[in-house]
Amino acid sequence: MAFGWIVDQAEQRRRAGLVRTLRPRPADWPLLDLASNDYLGLAHHPEVTEGAAAAARTWGGGSTGSRLVTGTTELHTELERELAAFCGFEAALVFSSGYAANLAAVTALGPHGSLIVSDAGNHASLIDGCRLARGTTQVVGHADPDAVRKALVMHEGPAIAVSDTVFSVDGDATPLTGLAEACREHGAGLVLDDAHGLGVLGDGGRGAPHAAGLAGADDVVVTVTLSKSLGSQGGAVLGPARVIDHLLNAARTFIFDTGLAPAAAGAALAALRLLSREPGRAARAREVAGELHARLTAAGLEAVRPDAAVVSVRAPSPERAVRWAADCRTAGLAVGCFRPPSVPDGISRLRLTARADLSGAEIERAVRVIGEARP
Amino acid sequence: MAFGWIVDQAEQRRRAGLVRTLRPRPADWPLLDLASNDYLGLAHHPEVTEGAAAAARTWGGGSTGSRLVTGTTELHTELERELAAFCGFEAALVFSSGYAANLAAVTALGPHGSLIVSDAGNHASLIDGCRLARGTTQVVGHADPDAVRKALVMHEGPAIAVSDTVFSVDGDATPLTGLAEACREHGAGLVLDDAHGLGVLGDGGRGAPHAAGLAGADDVVVTVTLSKSLGSQGGAVLGPARVIDHLLNAARTFIFDTGLAPAAAGAALAALRLLSREPGRAARAREVAGELHARLTAAGLEAVRPDAAVVSVRAPSPERAVRWAADCRTAGLAVGCFRPPSVPDGISRLRLTARADLSGAEIERAVRVIGEARP
Ligand SMILES: Cc1ncc(COP(=O)(O)O)c(C=O)c1O
Ligand SMILES: Cc1ncc(COP(=O)(O)O)c(C=O)c1O
Repeated sequence: MAFGWIVDQAEQRRRAGLVRTLRPRPADWPLLDLASNDYLGLAHHPEVTEGAAAAARTWGGGSTGSRLVTGTTELHTELERELAAFCGFEAALVFSSGYAANLAAVTALGPHGSLIVSDAGNHASLIDGCRLARGTTQVVGHADPDAVRKALVMHEGPAIAVSDTVFSVDGDATPLTGLAEACREHGAGLVLDDAHGLGVLGDGGRGAPHAAGLAGADDVVVTVTLSKSLGSQGGAVLGPARVIDHLLNAARTFIFDTGLAPAAAGAALAALRLLSREPGRAARAREVAGELHARLTAAGLEAVRPDAAVVSVRAPSPERAVRWAADCRTAGLAVGCFRPPSVPDGISRLRLTARADLSGAEIERAVRVIGEARP
Repeated sequence: MAFGWIVDQAEQRRRAGLVRTLRPRPADWPLLDLASNDYLGLAHHPEVTEGAAAAARTWGGGSTGSRLVTGTTELHTELERELAAFCGFEAALVFSSGYAANLAAVTALGPHGSLIVSDAGNHASLIDGCRLARGTTQVVGHADPDAVRKALVMHEGPAIAVSDTVFSVDGDATPLTGLAEACREHGAGLVLDDAHGLGVLGDGGRGAPHAAGLAGADDVVVTVTLSKSLGSQGGAVLGPARVIDHLLNAARTFIFDTGLAPAAAGAALAALRLLSREPGRAARAREVAGELHARLTAAGLEAVRPDAAVVSVRAPSPERAVRWAADCRTAGLAVGCFRPPSVPDGISRLRLTARADLSGAEIERAVRVIGEARP
């Protein structure tokens, strides 16, 4: 029978306690949200939703084609220009998702004969980019510039190192300065995924590369998502104009994908302008993360010190992590729950996100609920 | 120098006349559009843009997280239910793009040890799915069920055949009945990309698999995009509930990608409801395509007889195809221009799309301009 093997896999998943289910949110979701990636609380900001609505009305429900045919509107170009300027890069290219942006950057910059040095903790989309690229991938230890250096020294020809700036699971940051040094010693390019840095780290949320003095460098390419701090959907690659031009000519997920919907471009642009006007939002997200971490630790929980707005709390097992998150939910609190196979190290954890718009009372309540529900 | 090799490639591209550039559309685009994939002319329909706007206001600018965390709203579930019902399948799963839906379907249904038989004319996203999948891919001749049969007979264990229903470049259809027969003889699953069939083919636009009596079969899985006939952005996989459940648990572009933006879901849902209410739109798109083909042929142009709403016209060379399209544009007509490396066979062509809302006078004008600009 076609697809018969799926039934066995489903049974195995059930026995291992690893079945995933969708839980649709109603419009009037009653939970306190520490699970989303809406770090600045902008997804529901009226300027952002109005940006989406106005763009749909002016530009249509979809972009109607691939970016090189009919799918580029002046709105896309405007977003690209402002995003590049905000983050300090020469040029930008917008994609339908951060996932697609990562596939594009790694495949287009890791050609046949090149070496791609990839951090063991990288996001799935970077890993898939490495798998799709024609170059040879070498996976190195997590957040370890020396390991990158050792990999690069062995290779002749074009090379890149690829890393998240802030890792999505534990919220820890990569040592950017050391990583850039390792790359420069060997003339390698550096491709950074700033999905969890944009809007949170750097001056006014300009991102981790900007904070590390790497913005605008001719050997640095950054990918971002529009779906987290900017409260929308989509992704972008930022870098030197010649690199962006290369992507436009060579990246399959750019050439063969429909352009980002105008509403998503409009929402992201509105959020970006709001953040430029109110730069304190970024610092507030970091402050909330610090407070969350301090209170969790004070309550005796094993939380990773946050480098950005993600706070990770260790759980004893997948089953108990699921149970813990479910008990939080029953008590009115939404938290993320990461477990195999979505974690690189097999350790299950609760994943909390520090939204800039959480109040002190909400933080207090969240920590109380998590503490009371602890396994 | 990092990324130094890019400069050489750019120079090669320039010499070969294959440089691509973006041409941003203004809001009041003055061109007659035969280039977009907005087959039913719905991207600017007020119900569709209002669907996007209302969804953004109610649900936010973005979905705020991956589908399994906070990125599933009741709107996503509603869209999945109505899309599955419309196309005649048990269940559906919505993705951020058709590209992501194809990566998901092929990787999750082509596991280690399996065989993936892929048509040589398949879309880039299916090809990337094959490259990412753990199974072994065998590429077979274009639209050739016998070649699929021969590939399947050699293999023990799980197998799928993967094909576009309507190929994006030439607009020709695959022989679905023969393909399904070949798969069934060998107990193989059939994965069909109906990106260019949905909204155009089948009863009221229910798609090519529905027209071929394959909808709802337990060995058939269909992917669609929300970005063409439905005038929005996004993609979906349709199939038996157990297959959809498997994707939800196993597909990386589902698990690790932010959920589709509410505005895109709202626009697609509005378009789907409109199409259900006005099923004649699908037939009209086919009629326009037929008329376009007849008139082009009468004008002595080499056009491929359309099986759906794409009409392809051969051009003598990449340079002359580009020039032809540019001359059409100067005369007020937007047409697509496909050339290497975006064409599987190296043949450059103009690509025209038959929108259901084109008038007879517009079709006449389009054909006249194309004829006058011919190289
Ligand atoms: C580090 C990282 N990179 C890329 C992505 C993909 O971005 P998107 O969800 O916008 O496709 C995500 C999350 O989804 C992420 O956490
Ligand atoms: C046959 C086919 N499949 C998949 C896709 C990808 O869909 P999307 O652009 O919605 O990501 C496209 C076009 O873009 C296509 O032509």
